[in-house]
Amino acid sequence: MKTICKNYPPFLDKNQQDFLISELMDYIQVHGINIRITHSEQDKKHFFNHQNVPLTLFPSLFPSIAFKKAKAIQCDFNKLYAFVANDEEFMCQVMENLVNIDDFIKKLWDIHLEVKKKGIVQPISLGIFRSDYLLEATQNSSPQLKQVEFNTIASSMGSFSSKISEMHKYLNSIGAYGSCILKEENFPKNDSIKLLTEGLANANRLYGEKNTKILFIVEPHDSFILDQRCLEYELFQVHGIQAYRVFLHSILDFIELRQNDKALLFKSPNSKIEEISVVYFRTGYSPNHYPSSIEWSARLLIEESRAIKCPTVITQLAGCKKVQQILCKKNIINKFLPENISKSLKETFVSIYALNRDLSGQEAYRLLMNNPQNYILKPQREGGGNNIYGLNIPTFLKTIPESQREQYILMEMIHPLLQTNTIIQNNELHHTNVINELGIYGVILWNKNGEIYHNKESGYLLRTKDKDKNEGGVMIGCSSIDSCVLVP
Amino acid sequence: MKTICKNYPPFLDKNQQDFLISELMDYIQVHGINIRITHSEQDKKHFFNHQNVPLTLFPSLFPSIAFKKAKAIQCDFNKLYAFVANDEEFMCQVMENLVNIDDFIKKLWDIHLEVKKKGIVQPISLGIFRSDYLLEATQNSSPQLKQVEFNTIASSMGSFSSKISEMHKYLNSIGAYGSCILKEENFPKNDSIKLLTEGLANANRLYGEKNTKILFIVEPHDSFILDQRCLEYELFQVHGIQAYRVFLHSILDFIELRQNDKALLFKSPNSKIEEISVVYFRTGYSPNHYPSSIEWSARLLIEESRAIKCPTVITQLAGCKKVQQILCKKNIINKFLPENISKSLKETFVSIYALNRDLSGQEAYRLLMNNPQNYILKPQREGGGNNIYGLNIPTFLKTIPESQREQYILMEMIHPLLQTNTIIQNNELHHTNVINELGIYGVILWNKNGEIYHNKESGYLLRTKDKDKNEGGVMIGCSSIDSCVLVP
Repeated sequence: MKTICKNYPPFLDKNQQDFLISELMDYIQVHGINIRITHSEQDKKHFFNHQNVPLTLFPSLFPSIAFKKAKAIQCDFNKLYAFVANDEEFMCQVMENLVNIDDFIKKLWDIHLEVKKKGIVQPISLGIFRSDYLLEATQNSSPQLKQVEFNTIASSMGSFSSKISEMHKYLNSIGAYGSCILKEENFPKNDSIKLLTEGLANANRLYGEKNTKILFIVEPHDSFILDQRCLEYELFQVHGIQAYRVFLHSILDFIELRQNDKALLFKSPNSKIEEISVVYFRTGYSPNHYPSSIEWSARLLIEESRAIKCPTVITQLAGCKKVQQILCKKNIINKFLPENISKSLKETFVSIYALNRDLSGQEAYRLLMNNPQNYILKPQREGGGNNIYGLNIPTFLKTIPESQREQYILMEMIHPLLQTNTIIQNNELHHTNVINELGIYGVILWNKNGEIYHNKESGYLLRTKDKDKNEGGVMIGCSSIDSCVLVP
Repeated sequence: MKTICKNYPPFLDKNQQDFLISELMDYIQVHGINIRITHSEQDKKHFFNHQNVPLTLFPSLFPSIAFKKAKAIQCDFNKLYAFVANDEEFMCQVMENLVNIDDFIKKLWDIHLEVKKKGIVQPISLGIFRSDYLLEATQNSSPQLKQVEFNTIASSMGSFSSKISEMHKYLNSIGAYGSCILKEENFPKNDSIKLLTEGLANANRLYGEKNTKILFIVEPHDSFILDQRCLEYELFQVHGIQAYRVFLHSILDFIELRQNDKALLFKSPNSKIEEISVVYFRTGYSPNHYPSSIEWSARLLIEESRAIKCPTVITQLAGCKKVQQILCKKNIINKFLPENISKSLKETFVSIYALNRDLSGQEAYRLLMNNPQNYILKPQREGGGNNIYGLNIPTFLKTIPESQREQYILMEMIHPLLQTNTIIQNNELHHTNVINELGIYGVILWNKNGEIYHNKESGYLLRTKDKDKNEGGVMIGCSSIDSCVLVP
């Protein structure tokens, strides 16, 4: 493993560090880059405390070739997952085994099947995706982009990432990085607020009825509410489209389907009945988001409706690890994309194995047991915090019945490039060795026949974590928002 | 006294109120409309707590004629005070008595005299002014605009007022005011961030040297730092001009005058020597800001320099109450402005008296003693918190020697129009009767010969206070930031 650059981040004396931190902290406050600390007591009164989102003091150096490649292939990844979600037969095969051992996936799949039986009234889907990568350090060549996962639901942090990119650029411009002056052209543009919102707005237009609204399905006590709010403000100010926020557990009190066309009707706080064009899920990806049958009924009613879903249930399921594992198998990807296009995508794949009870699964199990330190075990879950790493895997596997193994995929460990940075989290600074995870946002609007109305790479997220922490999700408090400075 | 409109603000049911408050509080957070709660412990580490600035839930109704008049006469008020500051002889007369009884004013005036003796090297001044008004309720005609004071130094809240105007307009657009839908064209534009910054940028250009910077002189532990920061960001992003922030008590460590031309040189946190084009005071208007001779030496050094001052000492002194009182005397204003222009300005004046020991002062004293409830006693101070009201005046005057009376002016009480509103302050909501104070910002750039380079009305500030509180300054926690909806 090697670092990209020895003299970065720059050394700052006490005065310079004070200047940098005071500039950074005020910028954070003026631009609302904060997480919400919620307490139920405050909640009732709408007065909350806030703290800066975990973030890095310096932007990270990132190899230009890898960054550009990640952006260049995003539209093809968008298409790939749109086509996977369109392929009922393929998805049916993937689900076949999973539904028997994973109750959460079964419930989602059942919603899809039930709505299919009744008739899908909205052929158009909106995907706000994010493809996440690590940079694999190599001995001889430049670092390689390796895909960690592909998110098809609730891809968050788009607003904060865009704002922190701007902030690092600003801090550099005003000389807050001391004698280190990074060239402005090496700070890549990060327009994710604009581009993610554009996707929602285009879906709204495509829905075809005037004066319809967008519904954000959100979690109560969401620490990242300010990240979501920026999209709402941009939607309203730039596109003139209003969004309402609703919790999954209470939405049934406010919605119903119009009998003739299953239009999703929403009762606003002013008791006005509004037609909903797009339902945007910022929750619903974890079993914890469905504590009772109420949430499941809500999800079913939305799925049945004429509103464009971001995402549909089947698109959400296309993002499960099992699909990622199958797409990594030789030539499967060519079912969806021609060879000349799929080639670049496949270069980002690492080996992923199923722990099935068949011959290939037994082979994978042997590989694992011989070198557990080379693997990560991942369940079919979004949102981080669920993975088992390296030497912990054998012990873990002993605790579950063999039949349960199939719900996990076994992924080759990526040995990421290291650099150093200073992380600001919980009102403390930590100077430490870090790993960068690059996420590229992608927005796609397509229909059941494979027609594509909008397909764009839509900005990026750089998350940086202490090298000794294993999880990448900012949500669970281990990862910090960062931005890229491109280097050769 | 009458309210303008009976059905405003609208009644909201529980759902509607919850919706409004949650929309408002999130908007505040995303847009950084917060005051800083400082503790010395946190201060060292740059981690602070913040709380929403006191603000109103609803915009206030404001008579269109009065609003437009206040805007229309601002440029003439700018000129008036610029010309007063240019008139050495006039200012000398005003100061003559004051310097003997007001040590703060004496020290400021001494700086002016000392610099004048050495030779004024910068003929150009920048004024960022604010003229504050109450609306006087009348029995028969529409409410009359009455000037409370004219601020010539550290006119603050420009950024927050601009943001809160946008916020009220947004809340109205998304239906957060329930069935009450205010017409968008009745929300006057409030571009104070843009316009105040434009003044600083034009002064920078007029200074005439390339790559010069602007210096903000600020207070430590300033609760309103986020209001100032917005001007810095706008300066940098729109005009490419960097500003540095320095405390008056520490500035001598960082500045010196270049021998040949008295250019103000500033040592940046990176130890780079930067030439300063404009010094913008956001402090320095109260004796509390000069706890030792260090601050006075700093003020003197800045005044001596070639940098354009916002404001110069004499411009600051032109804003003292004594000048306001003298300008209210019959025909004095015509010394500075022609009759046809001064007429509209004079219409906003209330009677103001000096408590001199001459005949007119004795007459004013008699007026006061007969009807103390009709008067306010004001010292020569900015920033609120220093006035004595109505029936408290006679008792107060007994506590000071007669010779000291001259440092006060006696101002006729304005009987302001009342309306109701809900104030959000200290995490509580208060629905109450309120008084509105309208401030119009004005920016003027002029030189000692009376040439004017820039003269613009530059946005507004509406401050709203509980009718039973006597002070208007947001700074002292009694007043809330509001915005106007114009009504016939």
